[in-house]
This record gives sequence, structure tokens and C-alpha cells, in this order.
Amino acid sequence: MEKKDNIIRSFEKDPINWYTDIVSKAELMIYGPTKGTMYLRPYALSIWNLIVKNLTKEFEKNGVEEVKFPLIFPKSLLDKEKKHIEGFAPEVLVITQIGDKKLNDFNVIRPTSEMLFSDYFKKTIKTYNQLPIKLNQWVNVMRWENNTRPFLRNSEFYWQEGHTVHNDEDEAKSFALKIHQIYSNFINKALLLPIISGEKSLNERFAGAINSFTQEAILKDGQALQIATSHYLGNSFAKSIDFKIQNSKNKYVFPFQTSWGTSTRLIGGIIMTHSDNKGLLLPSKIAPFQIVIIPIKNQQNSEKIEIFLNNTFAKLKRNFRIKIDDSNNSFGYRMNNWEIKGVPIIIEIGIKEVLNQNLILKLRSEEDKKSININQFNSKVISNYLKDYDQKIQKKALNNFLNRKIWINDLKDLKTKILQKKVVFCYWIEDSKLENKIKIETGATIRLIYKEKKLATAINKNQQTDQVAIFARAY
Amino acid sequence: MEKKDNIIRSFEKDPINWYTDIVSKAELMIYGPTKGTMYLRPYALSIWNLIVKNLTKEFEKNGVEEVKFPLIFPKSLLDKEKKHIEGFAPEVLVITQIGDKKLNDFNVIRPTSEMLFSDYFKKTIKTYNQLPIKLNQWVNVMRWENNTRPFLRNSEFYWQEGHTVHNDEDEAKSFALKIHQIYSNFINKALLLPIISGEKSLNERFAGAINSFTQEAILKDGQALQIATSHYLGNSFAKSIDFKIQNSKNKYVFPFQTSWGTSTRLIGGIIMTHSDNKGLLLPSKIAPFQIVIIPIKNQQNSEKIEIFLNNTFAKLKRNFRIKIDDSNNSFGYRMNNWEIKGVPIIIEIGIKEVLNQNLILKLRSEEDKKSININQFNSKVISNYLKDYDQKIQKKALNNFLNRKIWINDLKDLKTKILQKKVVFCYWIEDSKLENKIKIETGATIRLIYKEKKLATAINKNQQTDQVAIFARAY
Repeated sequence: MEKKDNIIRSFEKDPINWYTDIVSKAELMIYGPTKGTMYLRPYALSIWNLIVKNLTKEFEKNGVEEVKFPLIFPKSLLDKEKKHIEGFAPEVLVITQIGDKKLNDFNVIRPTSEMLFSDYFKKTIKTYNQLPIKLNQWVNVMRWENNTRPFLRNSEFYWQEGHTVHNDEDEAKSFALKIHQIYSNFINKALLLPIISGEKSLNERFAGAINSFTQEAILKDGQALQIATSHYLGNSFAKSIDFKIQNSKNKYVFPFQTSWGTSTRLIGGIIMTHSDNKGLLLPSKIAPFQIVIIPIKNQQNSEKIEIFLNNTFAKLKRNFRIKIDDSNNSFGYRMNNWEIKGVPIIIEIGIKEVLNQNLILKLRSEEDKKSININQFNSKVISNYLKDYDQKIQKKALNNFLNRKIWINDLKDLKTKILQKKVVFCYWIEDSKLENKIKIETGATIRLIYKEKKLATAINKNQQTDQVAIFARAY
Repeated sequence: MEKKDNIIRSFEKDPINWYTDIVSKAELMIYGPTKGTMYLRPYALSIWNLIVKNLTKEFEKNGVEEVKFPLIFPKSLLDKEKKHIEGFAPEVLVITQIGDKKLNDFNVIRPTSEMLFSDYFKKTIKTYNQLPIKLNQWVNVMRWENNTRPFLRNSEFYWQEGHTVHNDEDEAKSFALKIHQIYSNFINKALLLPIISGEKSLNERFAGAINSFTQEAILKDGQALQIATSHYLGNSFAKSIDFKIQNSKNKYVFPFQTSWGTSTRLIGGIIMTHSDNKGLLLPSKIAPFQIVIIPIKNQQNSEKIEIFLNNTFAKLKRNFRIKIDDSNNSFGYRMNNWEIKGVPIIIEIGIKEVLNQNLILKLRSEEDKKSININQFNSKVISNYLKDYDQKIQKKALNNFLNRKIWINDLKDLKTKILQKKVVFCYWIEDSKLENKIKIETGATIRLIYKEKKLATAINKNQQTDQVAIFARAY
């Protein structure tokens, strides 16, 4: 019985503390002793493990195999790809000592593992008929951050990084796009997050990539969150370490690579999209418990309640993740605890319910409780409730996005709209200098670029284009 | 189609290269760029994931919840428990820089996480009625090693570390023993390794523990491998950071802790126990594929073979991990490849088998092939084959252990027996000095101490005791 102060500050009045209250009171994490690190608590880890399981299934369908590669590697290896090292050098953690003894060769903790995978590929792939090779690992990575926020920006985070090698350019590029699609489906359909999808501008591209495709969630506060990316790397990494294979004509050529990743930021995205002032609301597909049953204790009738409870539990445990909370905490405490934790369905069972053969059911997405006869209570009914619940929270999130979304056709409007926390769509011709200037002036960056079906005049040049840039502030 | 030199050097003539050949030719790993690190390849990771899955199930049954805690923490935190820091300081990796910028507070990569868990417990547990708390994490840890061997001694390895907190001493100690039992069951029944079980001597105890219980595998070469340990920590860690809780009488007291772990060493133990001069032999419970079907290609009859193949596959895929290897490699190459990888059952299907409605089946534990009519071929038959296979490899391993095991009652015999690569049992009175002397002279350490039912005279003191020490060389 943990004493808990259950007050969550208001999103509207104090969004920063609202977020902090939710991550701590839903018992997702507490801060680690080193800046930007987290103790991920059991509830957060259950969510993460469900994400891992679902995505792994999708990757496997596409021939991806799982590996685990080293946490650290010599700094000299990171230095080999020039753009890559420029991108990561300032935030990489460097190991210089074992105990008090200085190391001759400094090592770094992986900020990402393109160089390691390329090294592995070079050592194990000799000819074209070994390709394609598709590998993925679920691991932790570290990038030192000055401004950290749990799940949104951490020095240590958990992710998957996939790395593939292909004989030809087209195959590699379409595989990167295939994964881009897998991410989009999962984030949309399982996590119920409204996302924008497209390609990164030159300025925002992954260090070393030719194309970076991104999925960005648009959060409750109007900020964007880069949540999953897949990169077509061409052969820049292969060239940096002279990784060649024998092709079908017995010539030695550089193969083509991709890399792609998504991380515990997904949890940050879920919190910042679906939560309200009472706490979390978890999409049913990744809720550790889809249903929690709270018995209302009553000493006189405890046996009757017990039987009814166990029957109800037995009916549902095969098809749902379900928990009975019969801890010694008060009914109010337990109710509140599972509401903060965003359980989709809470069921109350007391002696009145037993006598009436009824259940009281509360959807986290609604204010009212429903009374349901036990005979009408089956997996199909519950499935439908979960479907309704998911649709409701998805719709709410989508409405927020649509309210934020705005088209402009005059560059002058950009700053105003960004200050109004809008997500700004505009026709745009690539211009890195102007993009930088806008970033400095407004704090907004181009989150991604995509192609519209019809042409229009770019807002930054008197020229027709089908390219649309989306500007927003981002975490 | 990977070209592969399939020759494995002989265990009897060249045990070191025999081991190296197996780990590389069974495609378990290649060396990482930093000493003592590994690229764990898909086949090794499949084995590891099966180990993780099986053990997690056992832990969950005992109320253990999963977490992920930080990879790094301030060096000052490690320094707080004196024995603990003495034990780990020389091998701990120290982060002193971010990019080229010196850090004010040095951080270490976790060599183990007692200090982190204690810190977390202190921050989240206030009163006795929150206890017991049982947590576990599956993560990587690092300890710098000078002599490294894949899976047996690595600078980076993967493990689980469990940490629990209890109100009283007895409960904590029995929980440590409960986990000790879970390890022993799993290692014996799933991995089929002969193990010795007991408690560590004072010299060999975990840095900071009161009791260290250990499971040690006795390998093919007569060396011991510490493979799983569980520690009763008392409240030494709680005291080191002043972690107190309110007990039922409203007094502030130090609670009692345990920690316990097992690692990718289990894979090293499997290799060093069950392999022969043709490669691995994997216990069926953790074999990524329990059955591999190799079709013998034949252009004229490819369709008939295909149908027969798919029927056979369909019959078995529900109950077994099964793969059809229809790659373009030669029959001999494919056969050899799966033998090296230690697949329990290989099935050949060619046109002759299709016409006779027969399958040719080869158990990795036997030389001969069997011919079985397709009508007799069902899940029960296959289950029995796997059972036979497991029993056979377990018996072989056990025999090796029994051949190595020897009792002595004269201290003078110890060195000779150790040189003969024996595992030496003797009645023993704890004596750390003598134990050290023996270590220097023979290379052997006390792997563990246990109690026999009857008393006898200790070999190191003219005194009756029920305590038996087991001496062996160890990895």
C-alpha cells in the first residue's frame, strides 16, 4: 500500500508539470542518478515489451533477423564516416579509463550503430548471393543531452535499430520505404497517434544518409515528435570502411545499405497525445492491462464476491490482459490508481453486483459508468468496448491535430502561426539557409517534406512546386 | 550461399581452437572491434531469446516484475559500499568525457547494479507494507577482462539481474535460495548441463554479499564454470546509502535484500558441454530449430517433392520449431551446416523418399540414419525422438562429470588431481589463507561448499565436519 498524492496538475495551466506528474504518478519512471537517465518501472516496461513484441512480429514477416552488437567501440571507428562523426561527436560518451588506468584507445558508447554494422557486414559478407541481409537489434543507446525530458529526450534510451545490405540501390531504397510503412501502420493503428509522414530536408537528414524518411507525431501541445525514421544510406558507410562485395560479374563493388529505428519516444508520444488531467489513457493494444477488476470488499459476503469475481476473471483471461486488484487499498485509491495508469476498462464488483448479477463498467474514455448483466458479458462485448474506446481516443487526438494544422501561402505568416502553436503546411523549395534563419527566429524546423498531387507557388520563391514542407516546433 | 570451411579442429588435440571453430562456424558470433566484445549473430540470439523466455516465465511465477535501469551512474555511487567497490573498481569502465569535453562527475558503466537498485528502492519504498518488492532486468553489463573467450569471459555480456527487498531476513534468504533452485532446475532440465550447487567460500563470495549461492557447470575439459549465482545481501547495501523503511511498529529499520543473475555464459556452458568434433549439439528446449528438413533437389520431380515437403512441414509446425532449408547450397553443404549448428533432428526428403512415402531422419546424437514411413510420422513420434536425443546428450555430459569427480582425504593429493583435470571433493574447514595458497600453487579454487549428511575428518584440519569443498580450475 503505497501512499500516493494523486493530484495531477492541469495541462492547460501547467503543461510541464502535468507531464512530470503523469510519468511519475502512473509509475512509469523515476529519474536515474545521472542526468537524462531513467529507472524504467514495471508498468512502463510492460508497455515497452508489448511495443517490442508487436514490431518484432512485423520485422520478422519481412525477413529481418535479430542480433545484439557491442555497446562500445573504438572512437577511431566512429571517426571514419565524416558526416556521421560530425553529427554525433558532440554528444557521444567517451570511455577513457578502466578503473584508474588510462586506456590507450578511447572507446565510445554507441549513439547509433551504423559503423558497427558496417564493420560486421564487411567481415561476414563476401559475395552478392549472400544478399539481402536484414538485421535488427533492440538495445540501449546514449547521446548526451542538455535539456532532457523523460521519454521525449533522454541521454540513455531504448530502441531498435535495423540495418540492411542490398545488391542494388532500388531494392535498398524500397526496403527503407517498406519499413517506413510498417512504422506508420503501427503508430497509427496500434498507438493511435496522429502522424505526419515524409522525407527530411537536407538540414534535418540523418548524419550520413542520402534519404531520411520520418514519422512525426503531432502532440497535444502542438509540438512535433520525431518518432521513427528510416534511412537510405547509399554506399557512403561501405565506402568509409572499404566494404566491397563480389557481384554476379565477379567485380568488386560497394553494396547499398539502409538503417531504421524507433525508440522509447513512442511512450513519450503516447503520453503527450492521449493523456488528460486525470492521467494516462493507453491504447488497448499496448495497455499492460486492458481490464482491471476492482472488488468492493465486504467481509460478510467475501466468499460470494470471490466466486463471482473468479468466474468473471475466468471468462476473460484467455482473450484479454486482465488483472484483479484485491489489494488492501481503499476502493477510491484503487480506482484512482488505475485511472491514472490509463487502463481502458475498469470493472467494479461488490455485493450489490453479485446479487443483481451485474457488473459496473467504466471506460477510461468516458465519465459515466455502465451496468451490464453478467449474461451479456462476454469477450465479444468487451472487444467492442475496447474498439469504441480506441476509436474515441484516436478521434480526440486527430481533432487536436486538425485544429493545429494550417496552410499558409505567405512567408510572413509563419512566425505568427508557430507562436500560436500551429503545425504549418506550405509549398516550399528547398533552401537550407532560409530554413536555418526560420529556426533561429521562430524555433520551428521543417519536420518533413512530401509531395502534393497538385502544383502551387512556393512561399519562399516565385516558382511552382509539388513539394510541401511542414514547419513545427519539435522536442 | 556462404562459402564455408567446415573443418573443426579436434577437441582432444587442440581444445582452444576447437572451441573457437565451433563458435565461429556455427555462426554464433564474431569478435567485436573492442577487446572482449562480441557481435552476437542471429543464431546465438535465437538461443539466448529462448533462454530469456523460459527463465522469465519462472521469475513471473514467483512475482518478479521486469524493469530497465540506467546503463551508467556516477562513480561516487559505486564507491559507497566498500567491499563492493573493492571488488569491482579494477575492471569498471569509466566515462570521463562527452565528445572532447571533460565531465565534472565521472560515470561508470554498470558492472552490476546493486547500487542502482538500492538507490531506486530508497526513493520508492517507504513502509513495510510495500514489501516484498521483486524486480529483474535483462540487460548488458561490462567488466574489463584481460583474458577473454567468447561466451565464457567477455568484457560485455548479457544477463539478467534480479534484486529484491524484504521485511525480514529469513524471507530474503529463502527467496535467494528459491531462485537458486529455479536456476538449478532450468540448467539441469532444459540445458541438460551437469552442475554442482552450493555456497561460495568467503574468498569467492560476491563483493558485498553475506551468502553467495552458486551453480557451476563442469565442462568437457574438467573446468568449472560459474553459471548462475544468487546472493543474500543482508542490509549492507541499505546501510551504505541509509535506506530505511518504516516497520509495522512505526520504527525506521534497514530492510533485507537479495540479488541474483545468470548470463550469456549459459551459452558458453552449452558449447563446452555438449559439442563434439563435428560441432554443436543443442538441447531441444533451446534449439532455435528442433528439426530442419533438407529437400534433395531434383528438377524433374520438384513439384512432387514440394507437395510432400509442405505436407510434412504442415504436420509439425504447430508443435516444433522447424525449418525447411531449400537454399541453393549443395545437399552436403546444407547437411554439414545444420550438423555444425547442432540441430537435434535433420530430415532428408528426395524423390526416392516421396515414392516410398518414407522420410530419412538423422539424430545429431547418433551416427546412423533412420527410415520412417510418413504414416508413422507424427508429433508424438518426434517428441519421443527429441526426448531420446536429450537423454543421450545429458547422459554423455553426466558421464564426463562422473569421470572427473574424485574424493580425496589427503591434502597432498590435491595438486596431482587438479593437474589431471579432476573435480576434487573433500571435507574441509573454512581457511581463506590456505585456500589462497592452493590457488597460487594449483590454479584451483573452491568452487563451492555444501553440507554432507555424514561427518568426516577435514583434510586441512584434524577436525570432524559435514562441510565439503569442491576444488576445480574455473573459467
